[in-house]
Amino acid sequence: MILPIFFIFFLTFSSSYAAVQDFCVADYTAPQGPAGYSCKNPANVTADDFVYSGLAVAGDTSNLNKVGINPAFAGQFPGLNGLGLSLVRADFEVGGVGPLHLHHGASELILVVQGTIIAGFIATDNTVYLKTLKQGDIMLLPQGLLHFQKNGGDTPALLFASFNSENPGVQLLEIALFQSDLPTELISQTTSIDTAEIKKLKGLFGGTN
Amino acid sequence: MILPIFFIFFLTFSSSYAAVQDFCVADYTAPQGPAGYSCKNPANVTADDFVYSGLAVAGDTSNLNKVGINPAFAGQFPGLNGLGLSLVRADFEVGGVGPLHLHHGASELILVVQGTIIAGFIATDNTVYLKTLKQGDIMLLPQGLLHFQKNGGDTPALLFASFNSENPGVQLLEIALFQSDLPTELISQTTSIDTAEIKKLKGLFGGTN
Amino acid sequence: MILPIFFIFFLTFSSSYAAVQDFCVADYTAPQGPAGYSCKNPANVTADDFVYSGLAVAGDTSNLNKVGINPAFAGQFPGLNGLGLSLVRADFEVGGVGPLHLHHGASELILVVQGTIIAGFIATDNTVYLKTLKQGDIMLLPQGLLHFQKNGGDTPALLFASFNSENPGVQLLEIALFQSDLPTELISQTTSIDTAEIKKLKGLFGGTN
Amino acid sequence: MILPIFFIFFLTFSSSYAAVQDFCVADYTAPQGPAGYSCKNPANVTADDFVYSGLAVAGDTSNLNKVGINPAFAGQFPGLNGLGLSLVRADFEVGGVGPLHLHHGASELILVVQGTIIAGFIATDNTVYLKTLKQGDIMLLPQGLLHFQKNGGDTPALLFASFNSENPGVQLLEIALFQSDLPTELISQTTSIDTAEIKKLKGLFGGTN
Amino acid sequence: MILPIFFIFFLTFSSSYAAVQDFCVADYTAPQGPAGYSCKNPANVTADDFVYSGLAVAGDTSNLNKVGINPAFAGQFPGLNGLGLSLVRADFEVGGVGPLHLHHGASELILVVQGTIIAGFIATDNTVYLKTLKQGDIMLLPQGLLHFQKNGGDTPALLFASFNSENPGVQLLEIALFQSDLPTELISQTTSIDTAEIKKLKGLFGGTN
Amino acid sequence: MILPIFFIFFLTFSSSYAAVQDFCVADYTAPQGPAGYSCKNPANVTADDFVYSGLAVAGDTSNLNKVGINPAFAGQFPGLNGLGLSLVRADFEVGGVGPLHLHHGASELILVVQGTIIAGFIATDNTVYLKTLKQGDIMLLPQGLLHFQKNGGDTPALLFASFNSENPGVQLLEIALFQSDLPTELISQTTSIDTAEIKKLKGLFGGTN
Repeated sequence: MILPIFFIFFLTFSSSYAAVQDFCVADYTAPQGPAGYSCKNPANVTADDFVYSGLAVAGDTSNLNKVGINPAFAGQFPGLNGLGLSLVRADFEVGGVGPLHLHHGASELILVVQGTIIAGFIATDNTVYLKTLKQGDIMLLPQGLLHFQKNGGDTPALLFASFNSENPGVQLLEIALFQSDLPTELISQTTSIDTAEIKKLKGLFGGTN
Repeated sequence: MILPIFFIFFLTFSSSYAAVQDFCVADYTAPQGPAGYSCKNPANVTADDFVYSGLAVAGDTSNLNKVGINPAFAGQFPGLNGLGLSLVRADFEVGGVGPLHLHHGASELILVVQGTIIAGFIATDNTVYLKTLKQGDIMLLPQGLLHFQKNGGDTPALLFASFNSENPGVQLLEIALFQSDLPTELISQTTSIDTAEIKKLKGLFGGTN
Repeated sequence: MILPIFFIFFLTFSSSYAAVQDFCVADYTAPQGPAGYSCKNPANVTADDFVYSGLAVAGDTSNLNKVGINPAFAGQFPGLNGLGLSLVRADFEVGGVGPLHLHHGASELILVVQGTIIAGFIATDNTVYLKTLKQGDIMLLPQGLLHFQKNGGDTPALLFASFNSENPGVQLLEIALFQSDLPTELISQTTSIDTAEIKKLKGLFGGTN
Repeated sequence: MILPIFFIFFLTFSSSYAAVQDFCVADYTAPQGPAGYSCKNPANVTADDFVYSGLAVAGDTSNLNKVGINPAFAGQFPGLNGLGLSLVRADFEVGGVGPLHLHHGASELILVVQGTIIAGFIATDNTVYLKTLKQGDIMLLPQGLLHFQKNGGDTPALLFASFNSENPGVQLLEIALFQSDLPTELISQTTSIDTAEIKKLKGLFGGTN
Repeated sequence: MILPIFFIFFLTFSSSYAAVQDFCVADYTAPQGPAGYSCKNPANVTADDFVYSGLAVAGDTSNLNKVGINPAFAGQFPGLNGLGLSLVRADFEVGGVGPLHLHHGASELILVVQGTIIAGFIATDNTVYLKTLKQGDIMLLPQGLLHFQKNGGDTPALLFASFNSENPGVQLLEIALFQSDLPTELISQTTSIDTAEIKKLKGLFGGTN
Repeated sequence: MILPIFFIFFLTFSSSYAAVQDFCVADYTAPQGPAGYSCKNPANVTADDFVYSGLAVAGDTSNLNKVGINPAFAGQFPGLNGLGLSLVRADFEVGGVGPLHLHHGASELILVVQGTIIAGFIATDNTVYLKTLKQGDIMLLPQGLLHFQKNGGDTPALLFASFNSENPGVQLLEIALFQSDLPTELISQTTSIDTAEIKKLKGLFGGTN
């Protein structure tokens, strides 16, 4: 009789530490390096580490922008660590606007799941690429370029944005300028925006100096 | 009066060839290299190059698997070229099954937009990570590992899969084995599957030898 | 007598096409791909292809910002193609200001060669990192974050900025907003800046819509 | 007399922490991250860390496949950590077969050192690339594609396979399917293989469910 | 009867241009870019493009070093283009010496197939890592560090060296110094070697100036 | 009244661990991995972490080469960790010579700030690229190729060299050969330099064996 000695064969191959490198689920409590979080002990990894349900819920839209943002980056979804991709859910009420922003670490691909979205980005040669997207349309927003999305219809809209980094980074222009402590005079000098306007917006957003 | 001589300032900075490297929309007719397609002349790029509507339509599910697959890779959506991400739409009828397959060039993040999906992958240490996903759930499928998705409910299901490559590559197991011309004897020797079973499946899938 | 038959030895090793990959001097007339320009025929490459004298000259500071920018990116200095680094010279008159901007493709390291520079960047958590730099100081500006430099003294200042990409990309905030054709209403909605202020600045910078 | 004060010169340059980055010998006891193991203290690194003798010995061929596999991945050979290459020795008895498998993390280059090897891979367009290799021949197996090797002669054969990752990952098809706990019904649905055949092979390989 | 309508399913997925990116066999006649050669039309690719027999033959050892070098880089083996690995065969007669050299583009893993090899490399902190290797031993030579191999026994020796680049680059010290046209005075100033010694070696190797 | 509830909006987005990945300031006391040092706790990072004043001071030129080297690599300037760029200051007295050396981890771009510099590199096909550079000129030295700089005028010269790695690595030829413990006989065999010459230089540089 032929015995199932394939076990032996396989063990030779798989008994290496290297197997953990199929993935590296984040251990938020261990040291972090330039490539990401340390890996959770693979013996403790389960299927739950690869699933995230946080995007099943709409983000909170009770803000001035009428937009709810729900990210699944490596900081929320530890399975993504080191694998180079992530996802964000954005809910737009009627009139909702996603402010001008950029992601320094990733390009973005948006998918309109519900409603109508107007989206655009500004290239470094100053060209504006602007489109109105219907349900099912996808649009590309290249890495690090200023872009926005807004609800372009009269019903709520929903989009998902995928990124080719688990940490795309988000820099919102109005927040960076008007909620930070960058001095008003410096902002004015480096953006040409009038100081009165800056002070007004700092008041609204809570910036100082 | 203050003249708008910022024009001059900006031109100094932007009149370089380098500006085209915000993106590299594929020119399918020019030479292709290891990093992707040649770039379309940026003067001819418009907002349309960054939008793709092919995923608004369900894939054709009139096949044995009852699954319709609609990809937006660099071959379909030229704007993705060189930017390192892509998207696929998969429609599952009741009973629909996405056969065991893998993507050699990317990790995958699936988002259930409608219905219930059962998904799983097999790690190189032979562990199976298996989950039932509801609408809004996302699941990670690490690069190059065998995985599948199937409709886990009694209504149609819809998912979108994002990838961190514009060319993830798709290798479906049953197609690779039973639709190719890899000789039956070799398949049997290298998979331990019985030759009669292989011949039967080759008949079904159209494989030869 | 010992003959110099090392020639033979060496030829075996060096007669490969691969040798051209020490570098890939840009041929601006051939197809461009995601990794950069096509390579000039190596037989025509000379030492001149690796030297650039354009930064020996101050940039033109006769503009509102009183700043002269002189880049040595792959578009100006073909030797940089594919090698992943570049340099920019920036001359600041007294009162000169480098407007808020970012580079989507590279981190930046500035070196103050003359005078005093105030520089700062805004992180994605909204923290402002601000420093006054003296001659010989260097400061790091991480990839894709909004930053600025200004002359912080009462004499002209000079800095050189090095980048870890031959195409860092430059997006100046005031130019992107006020010199482009992005509609005033969209700018206001996505930045919270008042439409009157936007119209005023569009007038100054030459923007439309 | 000229003193050897080059010592001083050199110390200035070399007394940096950075020197350890010539290599990063794995410390298996410290945290692991997405880029690999932590580095062993360089003060404790010796020439022995860069040499591995495990491949001098044939792998155990007393299994059904008549193949012995002996890997030198980062898990066996700590010096490889972070350097992006590795090696495997494979001994084939007469009739020996390396089952269909893939490496998700690396391309492979096989070198036939003894005997005759038949090797092949299946591309994602379903084309089979199949060759009989003699001693000294090398063959390329691109990243992530299903491939196999078998002894094609009537004497034992020996090959070495090099990889461009220190953790290529190995997924053997028959093991993934028939030694795992992936339920028989799911395997059948996602591969079209008959459940009776699957149950038979699960019995042979030790799979469950 | 069940029809083989899987054909339809598969065609949907595979009819993309992207499939060519399983590999990119070099077309030596088309433009070359920073990432490598242009790809040969995939319709013309055969299994022969993935096999190279040039290493079955010993390199010519009739030189002063008594070493024969036989490379399989992208310039000799077009299938390697873009895949990031390569192989070299080195035959050492008794007394054969591989001169001090380095590879700027890859780390190296040597495998002793026959005889005894003494190999060593010099780290940037000036430590020498030196070992005598027997048949079957492997040794790692990290990227860009000066290293050598020599026959350490009294029988011919044979090694294969694998690299994690298809274009590792080879810079042999004695050739770079004594076969080039770098002026003797400059060599002496920048290496501290006596001009008489340099002139003698230039005479031997064929260098000028 | 409209409340500044943008705070809420922003918190949703920014309260992730991922924000630390704008940068990863080195913590020299925590484990180091292949991608660099562990990150300092971002709560303790200040603007000072991004500024380095060590290059404001000339390097010590009281050595035989009459060259002072002052590096700002990740080992000296912790902010550089993981960001992929660095800078070195080199002061040349009249007659000062930067010995032949190479950087295995980066390409280099030199900027002449004062005086005249003669610089050159040797390509792997043995071609020498040699130029005399004036103030303001920049020259490219591709990764891993042997190169040198020397003062080409009759006044002191100053250059800054930028690199596209925070750990370029430095291997000086004369130090590697004549200050290490690599045995004289091995050096002679692998470089063709006469043993008497080697012994003389070992005496000067302090090498042993």
